[in-house]
Amino acid sequence: MTKSLLRALKGEPQDRVPIWLMRQAGRYLPEYMEVRSKAPDFLKFCYSPDMAVEVTLQPVRRFGLDGAIIFSDILVIPDALGQKVGFEPGRGPVLEALPGPEAIAALSREGLREDLAPVYQAIGEVSRNLPAEVTMIGFAGAPWTIASYMIEGGSSKDFAKLKSWAYGAPEGLARLFDLLVAAIADHLCAQIEAGAEVVQIFDSWAGVLPEQAFEAWSLRPISEIVSRVKGVHPGVPIIVFPNRAAFYYQRIASSSGADAVSIDATVPLEYARDVLQKAACVQGNLDPMLLVQGGEPMKREARRILDTLAGGPFVFNLGHGIVPQTPPDHVAALVEEVHNWRA
Amino acid sequence: MTKSLLRALKGEPQDRVPIWLMRQAGRYLPEYMEVRSKAPDFLKFCYSPDMAVEVTLQPVRRFGLDGAIIFSDILVIPDALGQKVGFEPGRGPVLEALPGPEAIAALSREGLREDLAPVYQAIGEVSRNLPAEVTMIGFAGAPWTIASYMIEGGSSKDFAKLKSWAYGAPEGLARLFDLLVAAIADHLCAQIEAGAEVVQIFDSWAGVLPEQAFEAWSLRPISEIVSRVKGVHPGVPIIVFPNRAAFYYQRIASSSGADAVSIDATVPLEYARDVLQKAACVQGNLDPMLLVQGGEPMKREARRILDTLAGGPFVFNLGHGIVPQTPPDHVAALVEEVHNWRA
Repeated sequence: MTKSLLRALKGEPQDRVPIWLMRQAGRYLPEYMEVRSKAPDFLKFCYSPDMAVEVTLQPVRRFGLDGAIIFSDILVIPDALGQKVGFEPGRGPVLEALPGPEAIAALSREGLREDLAPVYQAIGEVSRNLPAEVTMIGFAGAPWTIASYMIEGGSSKDFAKLKSWAYGAPEGLARLFDLLVAAIADHLCAQIEAGAEVVQIFDSWAGVLPEQAFEAWSLRPISEIVSRVKGVHPGVPIIVFPNRAAFYYQRIASSSGADAVSIDATVPLEYARDVLQKAACVQGNLDPMLLVQGGEPMKREARRILDTLAGGPFVFNLGHGIVPQTPPDHVAALVEEVHNWRA
Repeated sequence: MTKSLLRALKGEPQDRVPIWLMRQAGRYLPEYMEVRSKAPDFLKFCYSPDMAVEVTLQPVRRFGLDGAIIFSDILVIPDALGQKVGFEPGRGPVLEALPGPEAIAALSREGLREDLAPVYQAIGEVSRNLPAEVTMIGFAGAPWTIASYMIEGGSSKDFAKLKSWAYGAPEGLARLFDLLVAAIADHLCAQIEAGAEVVQIFDSWAGVLPEQAFEAWSLRPISEIVSRVKGVHPGVPIIVFPNRAAFYYQRIASSSGADAVSIDATVPLEYARDVLQKAACVQGNLDPMLLVQGGEPMKREARRILDTLAGGPFVFNLGHGIVPQTPPDHVAALVEEVHNWRA
């Protein structure tokens, strides 16, 4: 058996279409909930190598997926930079929001690798326990998305504070981004050095940016991170997921330096084939709600995605993360459908 | 003075670029808050012609806008169909969610025009009091967006229930849409008969739909509504706003039968000019957060929009509704910037 996911990302031919699923380790799995119940604090859970290793391996064992993505969170970065990060049940992440650009001075990436050592330790441990055909995936959030939590203090509907920095205090935001670019690139390099064979950058909120702001706050910093990581680890494929970036996926695919672009479920498949796949490997894009639905509607759409995209460099995934109400049986059926597909 | 907004939508030359702003009557205006404080129940407020007339006229008086959009809400439709609709401060709309397709039988559009008579009365009253150069705008939600509230019972992050109907019970959703298409078309016709010179259809959640679902649940029902309204009132321009529709704006512009397409702030201006404006009048698309910001960043982007789009059929607007923290002075400055612009 070969590592079909790694090969697809390198543009090499594979035996079968590789599949992994964003948020494949998570609340929809009873075995995850059991481990999770032992660690009430979410960040402590992320920083417990034994537990992180176990929940990372659970979906790989259960479903025979082609990738194992380390169980962690994008907010380990602000935590390591010295911002207070918490998670409240039912409310999600809660941070002590940066009041203004002057607060950046209190943040520092000194000691980042020590602070995040449990993540790297878990990656090493997972790597040593993975079946030979499974690819180890590391990840980080993109600066725009991480900055949104740091400045908004949590989730946001309209990104009012973040955009007030972008539009009204761009020098301040640029300073924060300089710090984030360096920290994220270092975190990705450390994950690779610990055993990650592929890394993915999640820009979950890239889709709310108008054109010029997208160039400045999504494309440019992501390209800088890709360039830094490639400078140290040129052979490691990088996937970028600028969620809901629509017209701007093309710029990520063709000019960020990434090997692959992960697309959300609203991207037309013919566009992905004719435009994006010409520039990069494409990953995606089943609607997670079709995975909740299961049965023939899910399989039909999975086949349509495969028929359109699997002729070129392609990794099957969802358009967004698995949601908690997903029946695990549907995941098993999807993996089977993808692995059995032939052109 | 001529009605520059109406003329732009009909593709006729105008003296100046017309501007109106989504949610221009609203909480950012102290005079609105004063009227609003007299009516604790939001739907009752919408159904009080005197108050609706007053808040509709406020921004027109204050800013010299080219359009007056009737103050109302998209949820008057489920209310008129017999579903329980409420609004809770800080939480937004709360509906008794339809438990399943069998609940559709309890809804009826009989008596819709009587139930919504206060809306038509207010439109008539506004029309009689508008300056001659201002265009009267009526509106309604699109079926997908209205159905989201009816099925989710309020706002939603992932539209899980709505999508479970779309993917798992499409015949049930189609039955609901048949009812909604008829009700919405009738509501728009009644607004026109009361004095609306233009109508806009808001599909606020169109952007979460994958390609085939967009065709089925946004484009097709909207086209059917346009066709019905045009059948009765062929001369009245129709604007469609399929928010965040990205790749699919083009289909609304070229094949829904609409006269104009309203675009959100993430649409690239060159794409709007080269593709959308070839098929329809374009309306948009300043980021509402730039209106909060004000000053040179706002004016610079407004000029960029004007320079790119005002050479063709164009109406200046935001990419989404005004947010409550918007300083009214910034609105005045924007209107001035747009009205003073010359090619």
